[in-house]
Amino acid sequence: MAGERLIYLPLGGAGEIGMNAYVYGYGQKGRERLILVDLGVSFPDMDSTPGVDLIMADISWLLARIDRLEAIFITHAHEDHIGALAHLWPQLKKPIYARKFTATIGRMKFEEAGLPLDAIKTVEARPAAVTAGPFTVQFVPVSHSIPESAALVIDSPAGRIVHTGDFKLDANPGVGEGWEDQRFAEIAAETPVRALMCDSTNVFSLHAGRSESTLPEPIAELIRGAGGMVVATTFASNVARLKTLAEAGRAAGRSVCLLGRAMKRMVTAAEESGVLAKFPPTITPEAALEVPRRNLMLIVTGSQGERRAASAQLSRGKYLGLEMKEGDTFLFSSKCIPGNEREVGKIINAFSEMGVDVIDDNTGKYHVSGHANRPDLEHVHRLLLPDMVIPMHGEHRHLREHVRIAHDAGIASMIATNGTMLDISGDVPVVAERIEAGRTFLDGSALIGAMDGVVRDRIRMALNGHITVTLILDEGDDPLGDAWVDLRGLPTKGKGGRDLAETLEGDLGEFVAGASKKLLGDDDKLDEALKRVVRQVTMEEIGKKPEVTVVVSRLAAE
Amino acid sequence: MAGERLIYLPLGGAGEIGMNAYVYGYGQKGRERLILVDLGVSFPDMDSTPGVDLIMADISWLLARIDRLEAIFITHAHEDHIGALAHLWPQLKKPIYARKFTATIGRMKFEEAGLPLDAIKTVEARPAAVTAGPFTVQFVPVSHSIPESAALVIDSPAGRIVHTGDFKLDANPGVGEGWEDQRFAEIAAETPVRALMCDSTNVFSLHAGRSESTLPEPIAELIRGAGGMVVATTFASNVARLKTLAEAGRAAGRSVCLLGRAMKRMVTAAEESGVLAKFPPTITPEAALEVPRRNLMLIVTGSQGERRAASAQLSRGKYLGLEMKEGDTFLFSSKCIPGNEREVGKIINAFSEMGVDVIDDNTGKYHVSGHANRPDLEHVHRLLLPDMVIPMHGEHRHLREHVRIAHDAGIASMIATNGTMLDISGDVPVVAERIEAGRTFLDGSALIGAMDGVVRDRIRMALNGHITVTLILDEGDDPLGDAWVDLRGLPTKGKGGRDLAETLEGDLGEFVAGASKKLLGDDDKLDEALKRVVRQVTMEEIGKKPEVTVVVSRLAAE
Repeated sequence: MAGERLIYLPLGGAGEIGMNAYVYGYGQKGRERLILVDLGVSFPDMDSTPGVDLIMADISWLLARIDRLEAIFITHAHEDHIGALAHLWPQLKKPIYARKFTATIGRMKFEEAGLPLDAIKTVEARPAAVTAGPFTVQFVPVSHSIPESAALVIDSPAGRIVHTGDFKLDANPGVGEGWEDQRFAEIAAETPVRALMCDSTNVFSLHAGRSESTLPEPIAELIRGAGGMVVATTFASNVARLKTLAEAGRAAGRSVCLLGRAMKRMVTAAEESGVLAKFPPTITPEAALEVPRRNLMLIVTGSQGERRAASAQLSRGKYLGLEMKEGDTFLFSSKCIPGNEREVGKIINAFSEMGVDVIDDNTGKYHVSGHANRPDLEHVHRLLLPDMVIPMHGEHRHLREHVRIAHDAGIASMIATNGTMLDISGDVPVVAERIEAGRTFLDGSALIGAMDGVVRDRIRMALNGHITVTLILDEGDDPLGDAWVDLRGLPTKGKGGRDLAETLEGDLGEFVAGASKKLLGDDDKLDEALKRVVRQVTMEEIGKKPEVTVVVSRLAAE
Repeated sequence: MAGERLIYLPLGGAGEIGMNAYVYGYGQKGRERLILVDLGVSFPDMDSTPGVDLIMADISWLLARIDRLEAIFITHAHEDHIGALAHLWPQLKKPIYARKFTATIGRMKFEEAGLPLDAIKTVEARPAAVTAGPFTVQFVPVSHSIPESAALVIDSPAGRIVHTGDFKLDANPGVGEGWEDQRFAEIAAETPVRALMCDSTNVFSLHAGRSESTLPEPIAELIRGAGGMVVATTFASNVARLKTLAEAGRAAGRSVCLLGRAMKRMVTAAEESGVLAKFPPTITPEAALEVPRRNLMLIVTGSQGERRAASAQLSRGKYLGLEMKEGDTFLFSSKCIPGNEREVGKIINAFSEMGVDVIDDNTGKYHVSGHANRPDLEHVHRLLLPDMVIPMHGEHRHLREHVRIAHDAGIASMIATNGTMLDISGDVPVVAERIEAGRTFLDGSALIGAMDGVVRDRIRMALNGHITVTLILDEGDDPLGDAWVDLRGLPTKGKGGRDLAETLEGDLGEFVAGASKKLLGDDDKLDEALKRVVRQVTMEEIGKKPEVTVVVSRLAAE
C-alpha cells in the first residue's frame, strides 16, 4: 500500500472547547476517503460574536471533497458535538451513525428542520461495526455527563485509532454504562493502537475524577434540610443528574416538576431510547401550583444563566405562575462554565434579593465534572499504550499540557489545532498540511462566514455608535437643502450642552457650501470627505469616532 | 438635639463590587450636613455597556443638595474608590481629603484633567482629624493591596461610625502599615461604635486571609527555577507585590524592567509620597533588549487581560521590541476577577502557542487577596462591638451573607443597597427613604445617563444590525427615484442567495408605489410603515429584525 496514508484533520474542537469536528482520511495523498466525527457548535458572546445564534466549523474543505466523504459519526448528543448537524447536513447529505440515544436527539433536530430522519442510523455498541470506505468504526460505551456517550474505535489499513470523544472514568455513572478498563484493555490487546485522539478538557485538574455516585447522598441531605420550595438546576442533558435530583426530592416527600423545554426533551429522548427506565413520577407546572412549597421541588434549565431559560425567568419573577420566595433554596448542581460568571452572578443576586438561599458549586458536593482529570488521562494512556497521543477538545493551553504528560510517559505526541492535518501513518505524527480553518455563524436563519465583516461591523456600532448622513444634490451637483444627520447609540449633546446633530449639520453644511464642483461630482471622494467631517466633529464634541453611513442622492435631470 | 438624625446613603458600591460612593449626613431631617466617602468607578463590558469608558455613580441627589455637602474623603487610591473624582469633581467643587499616597494619585489625575491640585488636601493618620460640618473624620491605617489604605472614624453628635474602606488583617503587608488590632480596640474603647460600615468582598471565603509575607519565598523559588525570560503581572497599584516580584527577580540575578504606564505611575507615586523607600533598581525597555533572557525579568500591567496593557501586547507579539519565546515563564501574581476569564484565557492560550509556561493563580501560592475573609470580618465585629453592622462593598449576595454573620453574633444589621437611606441615629438601622440610585457613564468625553437609551441602542445594533432606508418625495408627495437601502452588520444574502439589499429595495418600491397619498404625506406613519416593510422582509429573508433608520426627504416646491 505504498503511497497511501492515514490522516487526521480537526476542523473544530482543537484549540477551543466546543464546536467539535474531526476528519479522518485514508488513501493516496489527495485521494483519501474521508469520515467526519462529530459536528458541534459553540456559543456566541457579546464580546466577539454579538447577535450570532450559533458558531460552527467552516466545512468548505469538506465540501470541496464531498464525493470523498463516506459518513458522519456522532460520539454523543451534547450540542458541542451534534449541534451543527441539522444546520450543515443539507450541504453534506451523507449517512450519519450514532448510538440510540444520540440518534434519537439527532432525529428530533432533523424533524424540526424538516430533514429526512432516515439519514441518521442507529448503531449498537461494539462489537457491532460500521464500514465506511476503508474504515471500520465501532462505538465503545464510555461514561460522561450524558447517556450513551461513545469512544470510537476506527480501524484503517494503516492501523487502529481510538477517538475518545468526551469521557470520564466513572464505573457508576447513575444512568447508562459505566467506564470499564477491561473494554479498553481488550481493544488494545486485539489490535495495537496507532493513535489515541483524546479529550483534554480537564487536563489541569490534578486529582482523580469523582463519580456521579458520590452525589445522591449530599443532595438528598441538602433537600431534606430545606424549608421552603427547592429548585435545582443542572445541564438538561445530564439525565443521570436529573434522576438523582428527582429521586432526592421524592425521598424528601416532595413532588417533582421539570421546567424548561430542553429538560423535558432530554427525558423524553432518554425514555424513548430506553436508557432511562425508571424516572420518578413528575407533575405539571399547573399541578405544582397546588402543592405546598415545602412539598415541592422544581428541576429547571438555565444552569449557565441563559436569559430565556427557567432559572433566569424565575430570578426575574413568576414563571408559569411559579415564584421564588424568602426561605426557598436554589441549588446549582452544575459548574459555571468560564465566561458565564456575570450572567450566573446576576441570577444569584436576584435570588438573594428575594431572600432565597443559593447553593452553588463552591463546595464541590453537588456536582461532578463529566471529563477525565489528569490522573485519569494518564491511566487511559497506560491502558491503551498507543504509538501516539493527539490531544483534542481543549484550548491551546490544554492541548499543550496534554502533550506534555504524554511525553512524560514516553509517548509520541503533538499539538494539532484546527486546520492542522497530521499524517499518522507512521510511528509518530507528522504535519502534512495546514488548511484555513474558519468558522461559520448561524445568524438568524442565514449562514455567514466569520470573516465576512458582518460581526465586525456590529461590534464597531456597539463600541462607537452610528451616524447616518443624507445629502441630496441636484442635476448640477448643487446641494438641495441641508445635509441631514441621524444619530443612533450616541449622546445627543456635545460640548457645552450643544445639540450634537445640529452641530454636525451646521459643519457639514459649511463644508458642502465650500466644496469644489469636482469633489461634489465624485461619489467616493464626497463620501469619504463627509465621513471625515463627521468624525472630526464628533471627536471634538464627544470624544468618539462613530461608524458613518453616507447616502448622497443625485437627482437626475428630468 | 431632638429632630436631628444621622443618615447613611450609599450611591454606589452597595449591591455591586466597584463604584464606591457613600454619603453620611447629620442634622434635622432634610437639612442634614453631608459628607461623601469615596467616588469610584466600575468598568464597562460588552454585554451591558459597550463603548462606555467608565461607569460612575449618579450624583444628582448630591448635586440637588450641593450647598449641604461639606467635604469628600477618599479611603484609598484604587480606581473603584477614586476613579470618578476627576470626572465628577467639577460639579461638586468641595475639598477632598486623603492620606498622602492617595492624595498624590488624586493630584496626578487632577493635573491631567486640568483641575486645581489644591482641592486635594493631605491628611495624616489618626489622631489627626478633619472637621467637616458636624463631622470629625480620622484616617486609620489598614492593610490592603495598595499603600496607605484607610478606614475612617467618623464622629458625629449622634455617635461614632467606623467606615472600613477596603481592608484585610495583614500584620506584614510588605509596604506600608500592617493591620493592628490594638488600633481598633482603642477606637472602640474611646467611644462606643454606633455603626460599622464594613467591606463584604470576601465574605464567602471561609478561611482566614493570608499575609502578603507568605509570597516572597514561593515567588523567589519559582523565578530561581525558571530558564528563559520571566514575566510577571499583577495589579499595578499593588506596590508591595511589585516590590516582592522585583526583589525576587534581583535575587535570582535578573535585571528588572517595569512595563506599562500604570505601573510606573504607581511606583512614582509611592516614591514621591514616601511609602516606598527602597524599590530595587530597574532598567529601561531599551536596556532590557540588551540583557540575556535568562537574566531578565519584566513586571507588566494587564493582569485582567486588558486589551491595551503590556500583557496583552506581549501575547500578540513584540512590545517595545521585547518578545516572549519558547521556554519563557509568565506568572499571573493576581486573581482573575469574575467576568474577565475570557480575556485572560485568550492571553494564556496565545502564550501557550508561543511555548511559554504560564503560571496562574490556581495554586494560590503566588497571590493573596486584599480583602478580609469571613473569619476576619467576624474578628473585626468582635473587636469593635458596634451597635450595628452595615455591609458595604459587595454584590447583594455578599451583603446578605454579611448581615447573616452579624446577626449570628447578635449584632443588629441590615442590607442597604445603593439608594437606600438608613437612619442610624438609634440602636438599630431604620430605612428612612429610598432614592433613585442610577449610574452615569463616561462615554468618550461625554457624561451620559445609564437610562438615556444610548447604550440600549448600541446593544440593539450589535444584536440586530442596522439598515438605513432613504426615500425622496417630490413636492406632490410622489417618490423621486427608488427607495435606497444601506445594510450594516447584516448578511448581504437572503434566502436562495438573493441579494438582501435588492430584495428590500424591490419590496419597498412596490410598497411605496401602492401607498396612499395620505400615508405618503404623513412623516410618522410613512416612517413606521417603511420600517415594518423592512422588518418583515428581513425576517423572511434572514430571520432577523434589524434596527432601522428611515430618512424621508421632501423636496419643497421651488
